[in-house]
Amino acid sequence: MNNIIGELCSCQNSEESIFSFVGHEKLEDLCSYFQCRSVAKGEVLWEEGDPCDYAAFIVSGRVEVMKQTEFKGKHVVVGIYGKGAVVGALCILDGGKRAVTAKALDDVSITTISRDSFDRLIVEKPELGAQVMKGMLLSFSTRLRKSFERLATFF
Amino acid sequence: MNNIIGELCSCQNSEESIFSFVGHEKLEDLCSYFQCRSVAKGEVLWEEGDPCDYAAFIVSGRVEVMKQTEFKGKHVVVGIYGKGAVVGALCILDGGKRAVTAKALDDVSITTISRDSFDRLIVEKPELGAQVMKGMLLSFSTRLRKSFERLATFF
Repeated sequence: MNNIIGELCSCQNSEESIFSFVGHEKLEDLCSYFQCRSVAKGEVLWEEGDPCDYAAFIVSGRVEVMKQTEFKGKHVVVGIYGKGAVVGALCILDGGKRAVTAKALDDVSITTISRDSFDRLIVEKPELGAQVMKGMLLSFSTRLRKSFERLATFF
Repeated sequence: MNNIIGELCSCQNSEESIFSFVGHEKLEDLCSYFQCRSVAKGEVLWEEGDPCDYAAFIVSGRVEVMKQTEFKGKHVVVGIYGKGAVVGALCILDGGKRAVTAKALDDVSITTISRDSFDRLIVEKPELGAQVMKGMLLSFSTRLRKSFERLATFF
């Protein structure tokens, strides 16, 4: 439990943290919804197309996110994320398959939340859930903006 | 007031509605946070770079969203959105300037929520706010997925 608080604290202290809207004193209330995990450098967290049921919040290290191109085995990197960022969030919303491959660029610490826990958080602690989601929304819309900028360079 | 309920209802009945997680009986509680607006075909809702303080939920008609390329006056269309979709949501989260230009492709009806009202909704009705945000998150992450797919075709 204390370990998770430490990890969430660590997440929160980064610039682009998903938890930036969550009051520091509220982190403890989040613990029961999250789990900790370590991923070794080079390890693949998941492959595009994998079934999935959790999102990962990066505590330390960097995670590279890649999308398959039309050439089998050839990927394009669509994001490199660090401390405080979330990866793989779509599946806790729609329960679909992984849209991208995620790979650890360093030894990585993550805290994960499952689809069930996420839904439980919203029902049991809506205010806290709303604060976490506000951080996620800001993150997603910032990425979308960057992605649009990248697309615009092709035209 | 009744007009807004009707508009929100109409939003909700579309396939990709932001309000899909909001119970039908809860729509009335949302009304005081939203305002209605009509936009004539061809009218520009906002230009890239404009200051901004509201997000728009489309009730009817289509809105084209464009990003400026390196050639002045030349845009790339990054999305065409219809009934139930949200446009311009980033600014109610970060208060920044418009990242894209939005233009009505038809006579369009929208309901808008200001940054202040959005924050008020989360504080006053966190459960409802969480449901609206869940719909927004699903929408953003779906768009991000599509944007990644589009990027992958260039490589």
